[in-house]
Amino acid sequence: GHLHNSEAFNYGVETWEAYKRGGLSTDILAEQKKVQEADLLIFQFPLYWFNMPAILKGWMDRVLVQGFAYDLSKVYDGGLLQDKLSLFSFTMGGSQQMYSKEGISGDIRYVLWSMQHGIMHFCGVKVLEPHICYAPEHVSEEERKEMLTAWSQRLKTLWKEEPIDCSPEWYFK
Amino acid sequence: GHLHNSEAFNYGVETWEAYKRGGLSTDILAEQKKVQEADLLIFQFPLYWFNMPAILKGWMDRVLVQGFAYDLSKVYDGGLLQDKLSLFSFTMGGSQQMYSKEGISGDIRYVLWSMQHGIMHFCGVKVLEPHICYAPEHVSEEERKEMLTAWSQRLKTLWKEEPIDCSPEWYFK
Repeated sequence: GHLHNSEAFNYGVETWEAYKRGGLSTDILAEQKKVQEADLLIFQFPLYWFNMPAILKGWMDRVLVQGFAYDLSKVYDGGLLQDKLSLFSFTMGGSQQMYSKEGISGDIRYVLWSMQHGIMHFCGVKVLEPHICYAPEHVSEEERKEMLTAWSQRLKTLWKEEPIDCSPEWYFK
Repeated sequence: GHLHNSEAFNYGVETWEAYKRGGLSTDILAEQKKVQEADLLIFQFPLYWFNMPAILKGWMDRVLVQGFAYDLSKVYDGGLLQDKLSLFSFTMGGSQQMYSKEGISGDIRYVLWSMQHGIMHFCGVKVLEPHICYAPEHVSEEERKEMLTAWSQRLKTLWKEEPIDCSPEWYFK
């Protein structure tokens, strides 16, 4: 549709205005409907460059618009997507040792900060403990099978889990 | 071109193999040429969700392939893009107070970690102090002009600046 302000383009403002007048594109509306109906959002991806791949970041950028996911002063514990849970589950190239506090890549929690606190918590979504598979391409076939077993085991009791506190202390203590 | 391994698709392996046999697409090769010829890479963007927008993350995902930017044990100080500098310059919605150690959004350095350490340092690129404009859309016209002046002033003496140390201590001390 038409831009709200064609003089000074502001992506955040334009998507907010489009949301309010029902002018977002149908693929975004379909994704928002899925989020609205979900009790738990599981994001499964390979970690690229200490973060989610661009295509998933694009999902965050496009779907979690102001008015839908948060609003002027409705952020963090006051975010608009309350009573939902999220879980980041990913595979990565590096080893657990590299991503430790003393490892060359730093504590993996530093990587989780922007996704869990900066995105989900910002929208009021609670966060379950992340599920991380370290370097599946470098371990044995047997270890890979164990990873899959551990994940399916965890899924069975996922609803009994309590969210992590998702405060700076959890990440940087 | 053909996949190196069509049985088990691995994006990192496929781009690595494509790089070695000269099979990357022309737009990626053009970007790699720019990187190769540059002494300083300035990334200018609006911060979305505690990170760069998806389109810029996609540039990182596609351009910085194994063999070009890093290799098996050639990472961090041994990365393949040594003798280059980088600088992350961005605008953001939040205020400096929100992004302080005591602020609700946590220290802005936590946000810088994945970009500066996880991407640039990983490839051997040194990192200059980031250039951050806090909440330009919420400040006065005069303050916005000051932001632009400060940036153009900084550019004049950028070549005299020393890189930050880019170790976990810089980010999380």
